[in-house]
Amino acid sequence: MPVVVVEMWEGRTEEQKARLIKGITEVFKEIGVEPEHLSIVIHDVPRSNWGMRGEQASKLIKKGAE
Amino acid sequence: MPVVVVEMWEGRTEEQKARLIKGITEVFKEIGVEPEHLSIVIHDVPRSNWGMRGEQASKLIKKGAE
Amino acid sequence: MPVVVVEMWEGRTEEQKARLIKGITEVFKEIGVEPEHLSIVIHDVPRSNWGMRGEQASKLIKKGAE
Amino acid sequence: MPVVVVEMWEGRTEEQKARLIKGITEVFKEIGVEPEHLSIVIHDVPRSNWGMRGEQASKLIKKGAE
Amino acid sequence: MPVVVVEMWEGRTEEQKARLIKGITEVFKEIGVEPEHLSIVIHDVPRSNWGMRGEQASKLIKKGAE
Amino acid sequence: MPVVVVEMWEGRTEEQKARLIKGITEVFKEIGVEPEHLSIVIHDVPRSNWGMRGEQASKLIKKGAE
Repeated sequence: MPVVVVEMWEGRTEEQKARLIKGITEVFKEIGVEPEHLSIVIHDVPRSNWGMRGEQASKLIKKGAE
Repeated sequence: MPVVVVEMWEGRTEEQKARLIKGITEVFKEIGVEPEHLSIVIHDVPRSNWGMRGEQASKLIKKGAE
Repeated sequence: MPVVVVEMWEGRTEEQKARLIKGITEVFKEIGVEPEHLSIVIHDVPRSNWGMRGEQASKLIKKGAE
Repeated sequence: MPVVVVEMWEGRTEEQKARLIKGITEVFKEIGVEPEHLSIVIHDVPRSNWGMRGEQASKLIKKGAE
Repeated sequence: MPVVVVEMWEGRTEEQKARLIKGITEVFKEIGVEPEHLSIVIHDVPRSNWGMRGEQASKLIKKGAE
Repeated sequence: MPVVVVEMWEGRTEEQKARLIKGITEVFKEIGVEPEHLSIVIHDVPRSNWGMRGEQASKLIKKGAE
């Protein structure tokens, strides 16, 4: 019955999301959770809404820090 | 003081959201939580960001699985 | 497929949790979500881990503020 | 390593978000968490997705209640 | 920089948690996220705090439903 | 009306939690949010439930990595 919530920067492709979902589902299967009992929710977060090192990720990127 | 976070597929109408909020508030009132002490947050999640049965919900729908 | 996460103070009885779960499930049913497609997760939060009005709820209660 | 998730109404300016991120990071620094170990995620929530006093915040505002 | 929050029933072994963390990290690596940029948080949820089919999971188990 | 959820390792003192709550509340006040409109929830996460660099934080600490 597990629920997985992923917070990540927006901009991932459909293919990357599909791989994430497939891969995470397989990992849970290894510990005994059937795919139909797993829910995965991805939140696409704009970089200006993501704080790291005390700044918005959108600004750090401009500075070439990441 | 409870906080309720709802993750659900985007596409619900304003009326459905209003009913959810009103209904959940009434349920909490039954266990002694006053409406002014309850916060409800709804996250509209695109189907391509929702994983179930190892796939994006957007693809399962196309296949007619749901 | 919705997921509901509830953050609330610890100390609720089993009966109160059962009513919450039953009631929330009925509200979702009204907007077309079948009970077997809804997951509800309750987090019991100690009052010392809950901040309101700038203080731990555990301290506000001692002061008779709530 | 802490993670902070903020749910708030959409409409905040870039400057307000930057202040939030900077300020929260400084608070964690005071209790010994280095800025590079803190992640902050802000969810911009439409008022129609926010429930308070049993109604959508979008409707309460129209009524002049807040 | 992604953050993954897992809600699952309490009772998983240390080994199962280690496999989950290792596996999820590998999945993110496949889409370009380095292990040092990923944080994973697991919430152990008591079955009496988990609602499914309108009831506490703790009660459904007693009934032999799962 | 904002809600702040903090995920951090268990083991923080009451005083540290009080400072976090007070400090975060002041930061929100700077952007116009009154203390009585802010809710803060802290989740104490065991190190064995925290994944970083592909491992449980509890194991990395034993290795002296953090």
